[in-house]
Amino acid sequence: MGLGNESNHLLSNIAVNGKHGENSAYFDGWKAYERDPFHPTNNPQGVVQMGLAENQLCFDLIEEWMRNHPEASICTPEGLHNFRDIAIFQDYHGLPQFRKCGVANFMSKVRGGRVKFDEDRIVMSGGATGANELVMFCLADPGDAFLVPAPYYPAFTRDLCWRTRVQIIPVHCDSSNNFKITRDALEAAYKKAQEDKVNVKGLLITNPSNPLGTTLDRETLESLVKFINENNIHLVCDEIYAATVFNSSNFVSVSEIIQDMELCNKDLIHVVYSLSKDMGLPGFRVGIVYSYNDTVVNRGRKMSSFGLVSSQTQYMLASMLSDDDFVEKFLAESSRRLAKRHSVFKNGLEKMGIACLPSNAGLFCWMNLRSMLKEQTIEGEMMLWRMIVNDVKLNVSPGSSFTCLEPGWFRVCFANMDNETVDVALKRIKDFVGKEIKKSVKVKHSQGLNLRVSFSSRRFDETVLSSPHMISPHSPIPHSPLVKAT
Amino acid sequence: MGLGNESNHLLSNIAVNGKHGENSAYFDGWKAYERDPFHPTNNPQGVVQMGLAENQLCFDLIEEWMRNHPEASICTPEGLHNFRDIAIFQDYHGLPQFRKCGVANFMSKVRGGRVKFDEDRIVMSGGATGANELVMFCLADPGDAFLVPAPYYPAFTRDLCWRTRVQIIPVHCDSSNNFKITRDALEAAYKKAQEDKVNVKGLLITNPSNPLGTTLDRETLESLVKFINENNIHLVCDEIYAATVFNSSNFVSVSEIIQDMELCNKDLIHVVYSLSKDMGLPGFRVGIVYSYNDTVVNRGRKMSSFGLVSSQTQYMLASMLSDDDFVEKFLAESSRRLAKRHSVFKNGLEKMGIACLPSNAGLFCWMNLRSMLKEQTIEGEMMLWRMIVNDVKLNVSPGSSFTCLEPGWFRVCFANMDNETVDVALKRIKDFVGKEIKKSVKVKHSQGLNLRVSFSSRRFDETVLSSPHMISPHSPIPHSPLVKAT
Repeated sequence: MGLGNESNHLLSNIAVNGKHGENSAYFDGWKAYERDPFHPTNNPQGVVQMGLAENQLCFDLIEEWMRNHPEASICTPEGLHNFRDIAIFQDYHGLPQFRKCGVANFMSKVRGGRVKFDEDRIVMSGGATGANELVMFCLADPGDAFLVPAPYYPAFTRDLCWRTRVQIIPVHCDSSNNFKITRDALEAAYKKAQEDKVNVKGLLITNPSNPLGTTLDRETLESLVKFINENNIHLVCDEIYAATVFNSSNFVSVSEIIQDMELCNKDLIHVVYSLSKDMGLPGFRVGIVYSYNDTVVNRGRKMSSFGLVSSQTQYMLASMLSDDDFVEKFLAESSRRLAKRHSVFKNGLEKMGIACLPSNAGLFCWMNLRSMLKEQTIEGEMMLWRMIVNDVKLNVSPGSSFTCLEPGWFRVCFANMDNETVDVALKRIKDFVGKEIKKSVKVKHSQGLNLRVSFSSRRFDETVLSSPHMISPHSPIPHSPLVKAT
Repeated sequence: MGLGNESNHLLSNIAVNGKHGENSAYFDGWKAYERDPFHPTNNPQGVVQMGLAENQLCFDLIEEWMRNHPEASICTPEGLHNFRDIAIFQDYHGLPQFRKCGVANFMSKVRGGRVKFDEDRIVMSGGATGANELVMFCLADPGDAFLVPAPYYPAFTRDLCWRTRVQIIPVHCDSSNNFKITRDALEAAYKKAQEDKVNVKGLLITNPSNPLGTTLDRETLESLVKFINENNIHLVCDEIYAATVFNSSNFVSVSEIIQDMELCNKDLIHVVYSLSKDMGLPGFRVGIVYSYNDTVVNRGRKMSSFGLVSSQTQYMLASMLSDDDFVEKFLAESSRRLAKRHSVFKNGLEKMGIACLPSNAGLFCWMNLRSMLKEQTIEGEMMLWRMIVNDVKLNVSPGSSFTCLEPGWFRVCFANMDNETVDVALKRIKDFVGKEIKKSVKVKHSQGLNLRVSFSSRRFDETVLSSPHMISPHSPIPHSPLVKAT
């Protein structure tokens, strides 16, 4: 289907300006998968989808619960008597039992019970996508900006900016300190924006981070809360991966931080949440804005009209998420299974000499393939990425699509597949690495004077052929997280 | 919860400007109902909700289908094997079977099978609310305008304008021709906008009309399509009440018109649809944009991310709406029941001397109480409305909340209640009319010289005490649709 350019002047600017954010390798990789999807028997040579942060490890627990609770659905003989009342429920505040016993209860349990959430501050939206847009519509006018530590989720361009006309100012983080957000980097980005006469309305962080899989420690969070308070700007905390922390005692929510802080204007604090990652239910489109600002709650709820969660889904989840025994068991088991999968995947890579950023959360690894780049540029990264997608048949996502300035990082998702597919993926990577080594050795021998290739092969030798544990802390490779990984 | 005014400067303009459209008697009436909802045994003196256009007359048919098709749900033992595949489905194109066998099939059946719909032109959104906003985001930039015949749905202010910053230019219709949209009125509004340097991007019509309950005839539709083609502006047809037509052969969709027209730029035509009214499932948030413009389909689908229909709901409805026997039976029976309910309600009012605009669709009557106004102004209408809500305890919606310039019209919904509640409502209206007559007679006798009251009582005598059939076509009441109603 063409794009009917001849009538483009009839459409809105946002319909034709291409700022929907999909012109990205992140989405191109998805398309490559869709064209040729891997299947163990039907298409064993197909592309393995490692670009989708899905959590498919605990469906058996949910299915077991559903089997034992037919009354939770309005479509079973046991629940059908509630069909009509639920089918007509369209109040944008949301089903009271969904907000209170469901979402508020679950959010609290995910955060170790150390914070209570008030159901009257819960605003519903269509997934985290809708929730992030909703909060931007409430906080910022067209042209205003939000600081966002990079690397960040590629679709933020769509979610935060496209229809709101808000802009993102990246705060670039790098591997020199394991991509930590520093006060200095924030100050610099903020100051630069002010000099450029850009009205910065806030800071948006993802914690746990997508794509890094890291969590923010208490000190960093306190420092961020102080920073936004001093500058009287908002802090939006996207915590949609909160329950993916392998060791749940390690996750600290901003909600926990501000309840202990004396000098914090809570009107500036907003949490975005979702059940897509933590429960693995992206199809159900449950997005939440939890705001400490009364006006944002009030106006946000009016905006909920545009992206209400289906009442059929609200009703079922209200019942499931209010079952404390189930929730506790689910969270513990999910965390355990994610830890195991992460370990299998990360160790598999390490055996091939590929290191990942140390992480404790998320559904992905942030994989360092810098040494395999033919040139240390974004174009070099894209060349390698195209090989991985087209030849190795793995859809991974290049760091540049996450606005990462350091070339050579790739996000690889590991929780959207079964054990056998993980083995297939690891084997393909191993074969690829093996071939590349052979190639580079060959090139080295025959074209030893070609500096570019020799540089590439030198780097290759150093990091891919060596185990990361063998790299000296005084390695010539600048900004390497590998140093701290050891 | 207060609105935290002290921090308003921190929020966006749309969060604080009050343009969300809820400052309207339409929504105030809902709140009056919520404070004191009628219940036949628990609260028999409570407010009867007649301000909500819900279709509750055919739930038994849907429930019967559900009972016979447990495999259609992913939450039954019969359907649970599909749970994980559906729970993770988040493609913004929508489930293929939902689009093709569900929505496209149902839309065609609702339009008498005279039009086929292409599933590749179906864009999903969160209810008609989300669909209308989505189409505006695609077609118009901030400051641009859409012509909308008035009276129109009060929440269009929110749906079309709030976050898009698009403006509505009302094309005022009146009772002189039964509120028909005329080419002259359109031309005048368009010309005036051009003189005011407003960029008019299109015309949005609701067909069948909310609040009028009327449908557009073929000639009017053709004339509108010609008008927008001549001016090269868009036509958005909100057809969410398509299946509420009592006599379905009377409904003509714009899709039917343009397939027979030679000179129509289809890139300008967009249909908004929903299952909230026709199926009575507003809680499920199924909104559809069916656009003949490729770019709108392409970009609209990207916007679907913000308001996707829950995959749980898509899956169930795909199955239900592809059952041709069920759909045909449902549509025929729904139409029959609506016709009956409309007839009972309208005849009940007529017996009291209250006339409604002649209509053949919708879930409401457009009731003429002009003769009961103390003064023929919007304030007079609001005085009467407050009496009806506060004293008669019926939440009806005043015409002014639909941007109707003629005072005295009220929208009264009749399909969101059972027969017994209809009787309660009719009895309350009858008692009220009786009391008002007594009062007016008393006032007339004791204060015969008070012109305002005497005018009011004269008008009252003329239209309320008389049957509408007794009004002369040369009645002094200007612009009365009653003339044509007889």
